[in-house]
Amino acid sequence: MKKMDNRAIGFMDSGVGGLTVVREALRQLPLETVYFIGDQARLPYGPRSSAEVQQFSEQMAAFLMKKNIKMLVIACNTATAAALDDLKEKLPIPVIGVISPGSRAALKVTKNRRIGVIGTEGTVKSHAYEQAILAKDNSVKVFSLACPKFVSLVESNAYKSSVAKKVVAETLQYFENKNVDTLVLGCTHYPLLRPIIQDVMGDEVRLIDSGAETIGTVSALLDYFDIAKDANGDQQTNAYYTTASPASFNQIASQWLKFEVQAQKTQIKQLKLEVSDNG
Amino acid sequence: MKKMDNRAIGFMDSGVGGLTVVREALRQLPLETVYFIGDQARLPYGPRSSAEVQQFSEQMAAFLMKKNIKMLVIACNTATAAALDDLKEKLPIPVIGVISPGSRAALKVTKNRRIGVIGTEGTVKSHAYEQAILAKDNSVKVFSLACPKFVSLVESNAYKSSVAKKVVAETLQYFENKNVDTLVLGCTHYPLLRPIIQDVMGDEVRLIDSGAETIGTVSALLDYFDIAKDANGDQQTNAYYTTASPASFNQIASQWLKFEVQAQKTQIKQLKLEVSDNG
Repeated sequence: MKKMDNRAIGFMDSGVGGLTVVREALRQLPLETVYFIGDQARLPYGPRSSAEVQQFSEQMAAFLMKKNIKMLVIACNTATAAALDDLKEKLPIPVIGVISPGSRAALKVTKNRRIGVIGTEGTVKSHAYEQAILAKDNSVKVFSLACPKFVSLVESNAYKSSVAKKVVAETLQYFENKNVDTLVLGCTHYPLLRPIIQDVMGDEVRLIDSGAETIGTVSALLDYFDIAKDANGDQQTNAYYTTASPASFNQIASQWLKFEVQAQKTQIKQLKLEVSDNG
Repeated sequence: MKKMDNRAIGFMDSGVGGLTVVREALRQLPLETVYFIGDQARLPYGPRSSAEVQQFSEQMAAFLMKKNIKMLVIACNTATAAALDDLKEKLPIPVIGVISPGSRAALKVTKNRRIGVIGTEGTVKSHAYEQAILAKDNSVKVFSLACPKFVSLVESNAYKSSVAKKVVAETLQYFENKNVDTLVLGCTHYPLLRPIIQDVMGDEVRLIDSGAETIGTVSALLDYFDIAKDANGDQQTNAYYTTASPASFNQIASQWLKFEVQAQKTQIKQLKLEVSDNG
């Protein structure tokens, strides 16, 4: 007899980007309950120091732990690079980041072994993708590029604008002579820019949505630890939280998830992660 | 700093079928070391009782544990259905079966929510696939069919023969009016029959190779537990063992893996699984 665990899965991000991960969770794991928090008040995370991102990540994790989650998904590449190891060690529940799944997917897809990675400054500076990819296959060539303007395009709801097209085209010029056949969208905000990015890179380049790939790992770990939700258990309500005003969050979230989202505003600045005995 | 673990990953099957999983491991995880055992002396497992398959599985696991593996992959659906829960509980290392990954992949792929599953009598009788699939999405319809003749076609190296074509076509008639858009190859021997099965089912039906899907989970757990092999560590030699004569094993293995395989003959009948303190 399986154990089952009907608690929610927690997702956290600096802003709306993590919703690209949530959308995949709703699709692949329709029975699971989702709690999401976006720290929009302190966005963007990309230019911040690793120590600061780690502190903010601990605050988001503390908020979700109080909501009694069974698993934590760091649906943000910058926070994964800065805080995954720390949170894995401290929390008594499984903690999953987006970098390993994205790296695995890129390695599975590439044919010419030339992989591009785009992300925030924090993610690119951490070299987390290079390390994860080369640890599995050191014959691969990785080209990483920080795209500091992309997150703001998404958070300001300008991700379909002509400005977005111009910024993306200019930024990705870097790849013109790199001959990559695979590009990792190493920031969970970037899938909202996907049509533009694909257009600039050309149809022959495979884009890897690190967040969507992550749900495969979430699903595998739910099975591995026997903590999937009981299919016959009560339906529970998903909940969305933002540290800033919900208005713009709701607008982007509702567009992206294709149903009406009503986020709740919350404070997390003063929270401290209580380290468990298991930690 | 990552922990790393340079020990081998153990794979076990009733015969050569598990090599379809090994092939994917060699492709996706080229740095890892593989130890494989096929219990060809007591093949096929399909018609045997669950208790007997569990006993045989424990003997194979005991053999691999003595070789000091870091992870065990039950590369056999029949043995997964009969022994996964038991071995997961008893062994101090991660143990992975092929049924959960196959089920997840089928759910990801199906559009009309009608999924076929083919496997041995043991696997089909266990209802393990139905249970795994419906636990995640109870709106799906699952059609399961035991194909008792398929394993012998593969083990006798007749898997490309006209006899194989006839047997597969006759057996799969069952699906004629079932309108499935996805078919799980719920036995690791079946990927060797894949071209014939695809031909009979038609191009529009997506075949899921449960074994190949399993390597995604293996890779995810290597990352999750920080036990991937150090890319800069010494290269180690993969090893193949069979409980019967190596001649026919080597022939099929070399064809399938596309390099010369020299299996060693070994005895496992008298082995007992020593239950660890962690178990």
